[in-house]
Amino acid sequence: MIPTITAFERSPDRGQGLARDMRVRWALEEVGQPCDVRLLSFEAMKQPAHLARHPFGQIPTYEEDGLVLFESGAILLHIAERHPGLLPDDAAARARAIAWMFAALNTVEPPIFERTMAIVIESEKPWHAERLAMLEDRIRVRLDQLSAWLGEADWLDGAFSAGDLLMVTVLRRLGSSHMLDAYPALSAYVARGEARPAYRRAFDAQRAVFTAAST
Amino acid sequence: MIPTITAFERSPDRGQGLARDMRVRWALEEVGQPCDVRLLSFEAMKQPAHLARHPFGQIPTYEEDGLVLFESGAILLHIAERHPGLLPDDAAARARAIAWMFAALNTVEPPIFERTMAIVIESEKPWHAERLAMLEDRIRVRLDQLSAWLGEADWLDGAFSAGDLLMVTVLRRLGSSHMLDAYPALSAYVARGEARPAYRRAFDAQRAVFTAAST
Repeated sequence: MIPTITAFERSPDRGQGLARDMRVRWALEEVGQPCDVRLLSFEAMKQPAHLARHPFGQIPTYEEDGLVLFESGAILLHIAERHPGLLPDDAAARARAIAWMFAALNTVEPPIFERTMAIVIESEKPWHAERLAMLEDRIRVRLDQLSAWLGEADWLDGAFSAGDLLMVTVLRRLGSSHMLDAYPALSAYVARGEARPAYRRAFDAQRAVFTAAST
Repeated sequence: MIPTITAFERSPDRGQGLARDMRVRWALEEVGQPCDVRLLSFEAMKQPAHLARHPFGQIPTYEEDGLVLFESGAILLHIAERHPGLLPDDAAARARAIAWMFAALNTVEPPIFERTMAIVIESEKPWHAERLAMLEDRIRVRLDQLSAWLGEADWLDGAFSAGDLLMVTVLRRLGSSHMLDAYPALSAYVARGEARPAYRRAFDAQRAVFTAAST
């Protein structure tokens, strides 16, 4: 049975692959699992039918054989537990890869997401420039630490894992800020993720939704 | 072998149990697993010895038989996979409980954490009151949704799980704001978590660190 995921009918990122369905699409491409995609308008996301699937009215969700999941991190872990390729077999290495999944979502993404929010909802405020600089300082602390950890390695802990997949998608949210330009190791890390054939297929699939909606 | 976790030598919350080691202490108490606690100063957390354990120089970490983990969510999942009591046996229910773990950390905690950050680093800024109100509006969106989902239930999805454990600790960060007063179902939910004997033991253990450091 093919799982069904949900995604934005019209992604606010205009097809740049920054919406969180990209994470699930990429993971499914990595493991060779096709999926159906149900596109949702912003209105439909706030309706009871979707809130029963996703208590916070967001995308993506994941449905398979009566199981309904929300939260991209949880969906990735579910996929990774059922297919080889996203988590190491060794128990300790697997636990560390999962630690990187949580680190991407709970330590690195929050200040990056706040930067996006500041641009969306505070750009007309008189304090915007000063606060953006404060947020970027907080982000740089994380980028410094992440870059120091990564060093010359290709991936965060041995082979490519679901932790790398999430971290690359989180770092991509900084794209338009050019903050990564000061971090060659992290820029190369993101480029390495984007060069994976599974990433390309997932990117093209989400972009096709935007292109179709725009014509 | 008894695992070792790290915690603040002097917690900035003055023993209120808001630091993230509380999540791990509570989980270990739920499953009846003793642990050793290594206390760290803020200086020690930024030293290479600790950064090798935790790339972002934070607490808690978890060490057991050569495995070193960071991120409270990943540590909880590791404990829950090795001991009964924190995740359901049924595969679908287990996946949903894990979804609530990620929801607590990636959807509910970020705006609540930003509120704390705003109070810590922006309270002298002329924009503080206006921005705090904007943040609290964002938090209320999540609390409305969470309260609607919980309804009259005791826990988020069936029996108490690691998802509830994390969500209760996340909501407790709102304590001094009194924002939860407007949400009786969520207040009762947090109180239900705090009434668990395992919670009490964990709370007392972390509080004893603060008390000892203050005398």
